[in-house]
Amino acid sequence: MARLLSKAGAKPGDIVEVRRGDGSVFKGVLMPKHETSHPDTVVIKLDNGYNIGVLVGEGDDIVVKGSLKPGTPGAPVPLLEEAIKPPGEKVFIIGAGGTIASRVDYETGAVKPYLDASELASTIPELQRYASIEAEQLFSILSEDMKPRMWEAIVDKAARVLEAGYEGVVVAHGTDTMAFTASALSFAFHRGLPRPVILTGSQRSSDRPSSDAAFNLTASVLAASRAPFAEVAVVMHGETGDTYALAHRGVRVKKMHSSRRDAFQSVNDRPLARIYPFEGRVEMLRGDYRRRGESDLQAENGFEERVALVKHFPGLIGEVLDALLDRGFRGIVVEGTGFGHVSSDAVKVLERARDEGVPVVVTTQTIFGRVNLNVYSTGRKMLAAGAIPAGDMTSEAAYAKLSWILARTQDLSEVRELFHRNLAGELSERHILRLYRHVGGV
Amino acid sequence: MARLLSKAGAKPGDIVEVRRGDGSVFKGVLMPKHETSHPDTVVIKLDNGYNIGVLVGEGDDIVVKGSLKPGTPGAPVPLLEEAIKPPGEKVFIIGAGGTIASRVDYETGAVKPYLDASELASTIPELQRYASIEAEQLFSILSEDMKPRMWEAIVDKAARVLEAGYEGVVVAHGTDTMAFTASALSFAFHRGLPRPVILTGSQRSSDRPSSDAAFNLTASVLAASRAPFAEVAVVMHGETGDTYALAHRGVRVKKMHSSRRDAFQSVNDRPLARIYPFEGRVEMLRGDYRRRGESDLQAENGFEERVALVKHFPGLIGEVLDALLDRGFRGIVVEGTGFGHVSSDAVKVLERARDEGVPVVVTTQTIFGRVNLNVYSTGRKMLAAGAIPAGDMTSEAAYAKLSWILARTQDLSEVRELFHRNLAGELSERHILRLYRHVGGV
Repeated sequence: MARLLSKAGAKPGDIVEVRRGDGSVFKGVLMPKHETSHPDTVVIKLDNGYNIGVLVGEGDDIVVKGSLKPGTPGAPVPLLEEAIKPPGEKVFIIGAGGTIASRVDYETGAVKPYLDASELASTIPELQRYASIEAEQLFSILSEDMKPRMWEAIVDKAARVLEAGYEGVVVAHGTDTMAFTASALSFAFHRGLPRPVILTGSQRSSDRPSSDAAFNLTASVLAASRAPFAEVAVVMHGETGDTYALAHRGVRVKKMHSSRRDAFQSVNDRPLARIYPFEGRVEMLRGDYRRRGESDLQAENGFEERVALVKHFPGLIGEVLDALLDRGFRGIVVEGTGFGHVSSDAVKVLERARDEGVPVVVTTQTIFGRVNLNVYSTGRKMLAAGAIPAGDMTSEAAYAKLSWILARTQDLSEVRELFHRNLAGELSERHILRLYRHVGGV
Repeated sequence: MARLLSKAGAKPGDIVEVRRGDGSVFKGVLMPKHETSHPDTVVIKLDNGYNIGVLVGEGDDIVVKGSLKPGTPGAPVPLLEEAIKPPGEKVFIIGAGGTIASRVDYETGAVKPYLDASELASTIPELQRYASIEAEQLFSILSEDMKPRMWEAIVDKAARVLEAGYEGVVVAHGTDTMAFTASALSFAFHRGLPRPVILTGSQRSSDRPSSDAAFNLTASVLAASRAPFAEVAVVMHGETGDTYALAHRGVRVKKMHSSRRDAFQSVNDRPLARIYPFEGRVEMLRGDYRRRGESDLQAENGFEERVALVKHFPGLIGEVLDALLDRGFRGIVVEGTGFGHVSSDAVKVLERARDEGVPVVVTTQTIFGRVNLNVYSTGRKMLAAGAIPAGDMTSEAAYAKLSWILARTQDLSEVRELFHRNLAGELSERHILRLYRHVGGV
């Protein structure tokens, strides 16, 4: 394979045709070689944005047809006419692990975090259409190993980048725990954020055919450099095609599917905007957002790690809560049933938590809708036992919020007061019923 | 109020006009008086199926216009032409608590379980259009107090009712934990069920304006007496109007909204049928279902109570799992991230669980999609530590299944083998991606 490439004089970024002995021809942009790639595979990016790996060997041929013109992602790849000249806006990509910075390990066949943030940026030349890119890898982990200590590192780095004058920040992050991190960042920056902080990721690793990394990262760089909102947002595929991404408010987003590209949804709220990466266009979907430059940077960093998130189930939930108190957890979020109820045995443990000064926040495991502890007798008993209803907040936002508050105060009445205050758009007074429809196609 | 009613000679089931001194007129069917009703309120069922409470006093008047004709729910109420003559089919309603059998307590303003199953049946005369009804209250609790011991009581009662030759069984149940109970019943009856067992409930109590109790119960009695499927199913409003209910397979259903009538959805699967209670019609949405009379009754009752359901979060999830093992839980279901991952510290605890013979099942907190522990390195480590991936099962079904299996065997390899076997339609080999769409209207 290396021989074929060197014979053709092909280098990453070149438009190549791979002509195989079996008559098949693949045309696209040659991607950089990774040390973990299969030795006989050439990875090229097709016109539709997908990366594919083509196995080459004896009898196959590679021909250079041109080089990538910047600014034309998704369009048929033209011959090189001018050198890449990125615009004046500067966007900083913080690498925080996840699939977007992963590769298939051909020894085990599993996906591992590998790719460096700057390597990631250089792999996707179309990013330079919207900004000149700098990047730094903060850590290389998979999504499930994200911890509150790492939220703090991301807040710290994002704050320093914004202070240095960058137009915006993109955090490349695993998709699985992105909603938690986006919520955490939203609370840390809720008092003041002059420019956007965009979290993005991919559902398939960057070196795979059908990776959504390039699409999501391009949309995110566009949003970071040019969107009018100065908020913490998640930017990910908005539908199954490659038309637009959605920008979801950080405290409202949830990953709702294990594998689809359009897995991310805003819960109980509208998304902020549609982002069209190929057209370079941002379409706002609401008017109530913080504008660019409207506020100065105010980061309030720090998260309490000893907070647990559990859910009600028709068994010994009371015993689970009791065990958490025994272990010295300092705060608990319980995903209750519909309106946020837990069983009678668990209500007794809430009284113990209150007496020990441990706040217990209640969300709903129905995902959509809101907690209301005033309708049923159980709810009233829970309120009397000190439970803090989370309104229409997601469990992810409630978890990050409690962790953030507990790093500031452990006084129960202060915790309750702060929790009930809408800090970053995580809480609505009125619930919009129509922001729900059946997911399962009937 | 009592004086006005007796003056008019009005009795429950009569079509009445309530003419108030302020000029407003309400026409509908007079509902029975409950001891907890407000003393000055008349509750009438409107033509659209909603119950409303009308405050009456001096200067108001009540006039009897006729009496309810059976078989015309929802239609404009005609004058009485014939006596109610229920069809030959017999359906048994098991009362298992919940909002459907609740009333507002006017002292505290909260909703409490009160109504007896037979009282509930007599409150909704249109049920007799589809079957002659018998009813028994098994227990009077709210949804959140449902426990595996009560699942066993319901299985036992339903089995005896079916043995006695009833056309079908309806279980009036709280909506919040209905998905768990429906799953439990599905596993208990998976080897043989000759006729349908339908779970239903309501999102608003039966004595409230806009209660959905009558609609759901009528659709359920119709399904129990005449639907061609012999499965455990949940029958609840299918849309916001009063056109049809959906019958969801018991192991696939999830309550997805805290308060909407159409809160129930089938997850990763199609519903079984549409049920049109006003037209008396059942429209099957799939062909792969167990037919009425196809199998003999085989109930396998018994559930292990010491099973916990928890979820991954970006903190000390390992410590939560550790605490559950310390407490002697015999099985654990973990809602992992996307493909079902947990953090590295938690993977270590999975090894402890395996060594102690405690099965750990993994579902996904994205709700939609499926667990796959073969894609990423973390998943492979989890498999090596004995984790049992739940495929595309809901957390509710996985919890009930593990509880049911552990009451039969505690041998880890037998538990794994049974868990991977599709018993009641809870598991699909292939995932149908299109059974998902954005919930939040964009």
